[in-house]
Amino acid sequence: MFKDLLQEVVENTNGAVAGVLMGYDGITVDSYVGSDFGLNVETIGMEYSVVLNQIKQAAEMLDIGAAREVAVQAETLTTVIRLLNDEYFVALAMHPTGNIGKARYLLRTNAEKILETLI
Amino acid sequence: MFKDLLQEVVENTNGAVAGVLMGYDGITVDSYVGSDFGLNVETIGMEYSVVLNQIKQAAEMLDIGAAREVAVQAETLTTVIRLLNDEYFVALAMHPTGNIGKARYLLRTNAEKILETLI
Repeated sequence: MFKDLLQEVVENTNGAVAGVLMGYDGITVDSYVGSDFGLNVETIGMEYSVVLNQIKQAAEMLDIGAAREVAVQAETLTTVIRLLNDEYFVALAMHPTGNIGKARYLLRTNAEKILETLI
Repeated sequence: MFKDLLQEVVENTNGAVAGVLMGYDGITVDSYVGSDFGLNVETIGMEYSVVLNQIKQAAEMLDIGAAREVAVQAETLTTVIRLLNDEYFVALAMHPTGNIGKARYLLRTNAEKILETLI
């Protein structure tokens, strides 16, 4: 069921190549990988889970409420992440030329569905 | 001179409240704070410098080239960060309803000017 939702986001976002639903402990719940993607999306999620834990700490220190969304653009990969709750996040891996706006929109609108299914 | 560039970015971005040019060691080069901003932009920069060091490590591990841009949306503060080089970054603090697209554009286009002045 999660895979279907991840697939929906990946296939409807220009430039998206893979998505993963993961805990902040780096353990994957589910993932979906589109065609011709050279990286392991679970490895991406694991690396960013460390970053997200740091961001959650920073948000707490700064008293700016919960972190909801993170986007990182590197030279060959853009990653858009939606923090779902205290336990899980969804990360979408994209080509650098991909449509980040669409990615953010679809992650936000699908977050509710994923949360309902998670709980 | 840096303050002028930071001011230009802050004042031309809807919802932006402050900007800081900082090293990844958390030491401020310069900052500009617009009116009615309750948080210390240097504290924001310092908290995110820890996050950015983690992101640089993740990018290296994943072999996705250098990280160029990071955006974090929390409930009451959005932060858009441009990583200038191996030493410095610029962080822009914004209201959550601010124009992230304009922030990214102005940070990218001003990055060159800031870099020229830094070196």
